[in-house]
Amino acid sequence: MEVFNVIKNRRTIRRYKVGVEVEEDKILRIMEAGRLAPSAGNRQPWSFIIVKDRDVKKKLVDACRGQGFVADASFVVVVLGDPNASRWYRQDPFIAASFMTLEAYEEGLGVCWIGAFDEDRVKEVLGIPKELSVVILLTVGVPDETPPQRPRKALEEVFYLDRYGVRYPFKR
Amino acid sequence: MEVFNVIKNRRTIRRYKVGVEVEEDKILRIMEAGRLAPSAGNRQPWSFIIVKDRDVKKKLVDACRGQGFVADASFVVVVLGDPNASRWYRQDPFIAASFMTLEAYEEGLGVCWIGAFDEDRVKEVLGIPKELSVVILLTVGVPDETPPQRPRKALEEVFYLDRYGVRYPFKR
Repeated sequence: MEVFNVIKNRRTIRRYKVGVEVEEDKILRIMEAGRLAPSAGNRQPWSFIIVKDRDVKKKLVDACRGQGFVADASFVVVVLGDPNASRWYRQDPFIAASFMTLEAYEEGLGVCWIGAFDEDRVKEVLGIPKELSVVILLTVGVPDETPPQRPRKALEEVFYLDRYGVRYPFKR
Repeated sequence: MEVFNVIKNRRTIRRYKVGVEVEEDKILRIMEAGRLAPSAGNRQPWSFIIVKDRDVKKKLVDACRGQGFVADASFVVVVLGDPNASRWYRQDPFIAASFMTLEAYEEGLGVCWIGAFDEDRVKEVLGIPKELSVVILLTVGVPDETPPQRPRKALEEVFYLDRYGVRYPFKR
């Protein structure tokens, strides 16, 4: 599908068909999408834990403030940043996660970004070294809902031309 | 083009065909790609200045540690985050910028992410309010180079299964 259509049709998905295993070739392309993302100085200050194990996912529910759908996802991507690799360790992994998200939709999957988590608990559950940072979690699975698009600010509210506050001359 | 091919073929582009104006419908789709990106709590803690003016671009060269190609880009996207809108003000704009980047490639354009800039100077040049944060700059233009792919860490180095350090069982 064209990039634009994937971006336009993407919705955050929190309800998944439970017990569905995602084909490995799809997971591999999602991983590749992340691996190939750009980063400052090509430092790639990231690593990822793909959590498929049902018991581990259940423990992540707890670490994610009780968000139960985490256990229903086919897998969870725990995105880590390495402060020793780059000062962009909290931002560059978001590029990789963005690319992985769009590739997941291309593969017919749905994603939810989870920022509400207890970092220490996530680290404990997954044996993550202290020196790394848990940046974000993505739940991935086969969508079992078709949510409407959530409202967005108008283009005029967020885009300026040449100087802050100067209206962009949209021709529409 | 399929998302995966855009991601795979994308290269960071620092040489642009100079003096080329990008069609407004392309710019509009790039903007839409950013506007439609997800953010924590749908806060959309971002705004963007599209810099096309030649003199302003030249001033940005200075503010970007003398990176001369900034002036050659058809336009520069200055990505701002709003700390008062979300605690994710430095990360969520990276999702929008990632979506905009992929859409730019879909449109036949090339992008370079610029993290080396003097924030105070960028703010001064563009009249950006003190309370906002300059998160990243993107230069966008018609590519005038075809760089090789830069090396990436192997999948095995960055992806684990169910627990940090546990090798993912790649079947390749």
